[in-house]
Amino acid sequence: MEYTEKQPKAIDLAHHLSDVSRARETSPLKDLARQFGRPGLISLAGGMPNEAYFPFASISGDILHPASFSTSNDDNEESISWFWKLFGGSRKEKTSPITIPKHPAKPDDINLTVALQYGTATGLPQLQKFISEFVEKVYQPAYADWTALVQTGNTDGWSRCLSLLCNPGEAFITEDWTYPSALAGSVPSGKLPVGVPMDDQGMRHDELRKVLEEWDEAARGAKRPHVMYTVPIGQNPTGVTMGLERKKAIYDICVEFDIIIVEDDPYYFLQMGKYAAQSARAPHAGFADPAGWLTSLAPSYVKIDYQGRVIRLDTFSKTIAPGSRLGFFTCNPVFAERLERIGETSTQAPCGFGQSLITQLLTTWQFDGYARWLQGLAAQYTSRRNSFIDALQSEFHLRVSVGTAGSWKDCVIYTASAKARRGDAMSEKAALFGQGKPLFSFVPPSAGMFLWLKFHWDNVPGFKEGDEDTLEMKLWKKLAKAGVLVVPGRFFASDEDEVSPVEGHFRISFSYASNEAFKKSAKILSEVVGDFFHHQS
Amino acid sequence: MEYTEKQPKAIDLAHHLSDVSRARETSPLKDLARQFGRPGLISLAGGMPNEAYFPFASISGDILHPASFSTSNDDNEESISWFWKLFGGSRKEKTSPITIPKHPAKPDDINLTVALQYGTATGLPQLQKFISEFVEKVYQPAYADWTALVQTGNTDGWSRCLSLLCNPGEAFITEDWTYPSALAGSVPSGKLPVGVPMDDQGMRHDELRKVLEEWDEAARGAKRPHVMYTVPIGQNPTGVTMGLERKKAIYDICVEFDIIIVEDDPYYFLQMGKYAAQSARAPHAGFADPAGWLTSLAPSYVKIDYQGRVIRLDTFSKTIAPGSRLGFFTCNPVFAERLERIGETSTQAPCGFGQSLITQLLTTWQFDGYARWLQGLAAQYTSRRNSFIDALQSEFHLRVSVGTAGSWKDCVIYTASAKARRGDAMSEKAALFGQGKPLFSFVPPSAGMFLWLKFHWDNVPGFKEGDEDTLEMKLWKKLAKAGVLVVPGRFFASDEDEVSPVEGHFRISFSYASNEAFKKSAKILSEVVGDFFHHQS
Repeated sequence: MEYTEKQPKAIDLAHHLSDVSRARETSPLKDLARQFGRPGLISLAGGMPNEAYFPFASISGDILHPASFSTSNDDNEESISWFWKLFGGSRKEKTSPITIPKHPAKPDDINLTVALQYGTATGLPQLQKFISEFVEKVYQPAYADWTALVQTGNTDGWSRCLSLLCNPGEAFITEDWTYPSALAGSVPSGKLPVGVPMDDQGMRHDELRKVLEEWDEAARGAKRPHVMYTVPIGQNPTGVTMGLERKKAIYDICVEFDIIIVEDDPYYFLQMGKYAAQSARAPHAGFADPAGWLTSLAPSYVKIDYQGRVIRLDTFSKTIAPGSRLGFFTCNPVFAERLERIGETSTQAPCGFGQSLITQLLTTWQFDGYARWLQGLAAQYTSRRNSFIDALQSEFHLRVSVGTAGSWKDCVIYTASAKARRGDAMSEKAALFGQGKPLFSFVPPSAGMFLWLKFHWDNVPGFKEGDEDTLEMKLWKKLAKAGVLVVPGRFFASDEDEVSPVEGHFRISFSYASNEAFKKSAKILSEVVGDFFHHQS
Repeated sequence: MEYTEKQPKAIDLAHHLSDVSRARETSPLKDLARQFGRPGLISLAGGMPNEAYFPFASISGDILHPASFSTSNDDNEESISWFWKLFGGSRKEKTSPITIPKHPAKPDDINLTVALQYGTATGLPQLQKFISEFVEKVYQPAYADWTALVQTGNTDGWSRCLSLLCNPGEAFITEDWTYPSALAGSVPSGKLPVGVPMDDQGMRHDELRKVLEEWDEAARGAKRPHVMYTVPIGQNPTGVTMGLERKKAIYDICVEFDIIIVEDDPYYFLQMGKYAAQSARAPHAGFADPAGWLTSLAPSYVKIDYQGRVIRLDTFSKTIAPGSRLGFFTCNPVFAERLERIGETSTQAPCGFGQSLITQLLTTWQFDGYARWLQGLAAQYTSRRNSFIDALQSEFHLRVSVGTAGSWKDCVIYTASAKARRGDAMSEKAALFGQGKPLFSFVPPSAGMFLWLKFHWDNVPGFKEGDEDTLEMKLWKKLAKAGVLVVPGRFFASDEDEVSPVEGHFRISFSYASNEAFKKSAKILSEVVGDFFHHQS
């Protein structure tokens, strides 16, 4: 199969629609309006307030320059750059104004008369256009008649997909560890997650095949799943990223077992290079141009989706701001039409204030500017990841090894043990001889916001099987009391009963705090974890 | 029962929760964050981008003065005022600037660092505060521990209520004619509307009792409904408004049969006085102050809701702009908590751009300013209603009568017949002797955006029962071709099979078009309808 060859049409996937989605009717009012809408027609149809009654004559924004952040991974330059940005140094951000007037000067201008009025659930035409061109250039879908459709963020996106594809009592495939809100939205409706074991590329294709081939409807209480929810890049919570080959392997299985893939990909543009210790880090100029950088990224599932069985979820939450509550689906037109109908009876179009400001930002920056902005963000997150792991390097003894088995086979693993602490003869001696007990291990992520620490509970004095849940929450509370808030791994389990008995996890986010806070929290972590593994009883 | 006496607590209504709503879990991450959030704590928990990466340094708006529109119903002053506002006359709107900076100058200032970040589904604290005070002052809920909670508009609000209260296969009560999107969102999920006949006050309490008392579970295929969806003010599509006494009568029945009332009330502030013909219209100064005007309005169900069984839906779509995609629930705390959970897994918080701009507008105007703005809007819609009916007066012979039976008993009814047309001897003669056939009738609405025309198909030449659906669409198409778009009544039927055989309906919205367009469309209406009733075959 040549994955990237454009197909004229997606295969018929309408049989995947849920009962609810199938039962939805198109809106007769909107159909009529479409059919009869023409210049000069007096509309007394819609319950629309006249724009004279919108109390905003215009809205504006001061927007940053798309090159506000360096694309270099040179830490020195970078840390200076993000320090002054974070903590209001003397340098001032370079901004320029954008304005959205109530009435457009030219017909195609973004304006409040349209943006603040009722409209279709497809959103502002100028945004549709920008998004469609962006998808074509960046993700390069494998078939011709894909559709991009706005939503109000990927949580809304996934919620609509559940309504689109799943009936109550049906199961869906996901990673063993996953985004809790994805489950909080599905489980109450009787749409049940089935976790597939992961490795450093995310979901394992061999394990996926096993789950599907060995599916026992009677034992499981549900027919074999036909929907998959996956976060393939910078996965939440594990931080792992799936490359092209793994995606092809999983896609082929989904073709074989007729599974629709919902690709929730908020961290796509936060892809980084591999982590190297500070001493070994080569000053590195990054990609000279955003276009080169974009082509270096792991591709989306839609690039190999020759059958139109992928619904990609994009959000502006990580690239503009979470409060945007704006994102988009990329999928086949059959699904897109149904997703639009679901939107009409829930959120309708996304907020017009946000849509118009973001669209004006994007069309002002243009594609090249937005690509440059994204490249700058990726460099920032790279620097953040490096800084956090560097901080751990300062406070722990980090031993580097290559995994020989299990989910981290062939990965470069960092295993932390205690550094000698003054006045503690035991730890001094252990550290001196490199005999420190492994406390936790991690594989540095190459995308996203998260570091996923595995704790070696079996090294906690007096540990016995059955303690791990208690230990995770015990250590978590001690850390919170000492001043560092992380998230217990258990909250991300797609099936809590199947959580490994010996490993505990914390998810650590390096997306928000300052470098100084990283250093301080690494210090607190070393004190609290060290004590916990030494004295816990 | 003393309805307005404050109760210490709502009765326990948790048994009304749907299976889905009951199964929802609270978010452990957010609980932890609430429990441990404190100054100085380093959070590495949330997957939040640092605000340094938000590309907006600030956003702003030019806002209208709250007294932009006259509160007088004097048509002359008014029509001048809305003409220049609508069509950009030489007078300029009076505006003042508001700005939302990224970082607040004072801790309580609205700012982008909070508004554009992830937050709880309860939205901006400053908005919560404004809304809560507004509800307390304006709607005066009958019990103490009511809660106001943001949503993204009343369509989202009703969609969440369906998820909160209804299981698939259950029925809910509504008006015979209702908002189509309310049904488009419920029917596909197997949540089925049961229409109750209406009169000029909306839903009839005697007919409601009849439906409930005579409910036959086996025949209906569903147990007796325990949810009601109602639009009590300026109802969509009929334009009718329910007064306090009818609300009390319906509320008492809902207590008796344990029904939760979802009060969708987008037109609440578009309440007007009664229509009088232009010649009989007294120049009228309106209420001197917004506070006096507010107390003159028909009360909300929450004012008599001593048991906490009302979920009120408010939206800013008609009072700020539809693109706001912002509104709020007012309901008991048990329902509010569940509605917040549903929000967390769908829309999350409303868009931060819209929330912050609207909150800044409201807190700049303050309560008194917003009340004044609303009073001005109500006067505008009064003037619009008057202008549209005046335009009909010019083109039709309107006979005034008082209803003696049926849904318009005791109402002042306007019945239109053709005016003499030049060169048409028949019509000249008929008009001369006042013998024009009734074409359509209406009761002028006292709230909202809509005029609901009933057509007398039995006066169409060659009419026979069974034709009415055809006639409605036939006339509708002729009108659209002639240049006027209205909405066929059939689209609003809660049960299409029970639509009356002799009456056809059009919903006409007077909210959007200009006075000139009203005159032109009345002329087109008279030509097309006149021809249709004269020559249709």
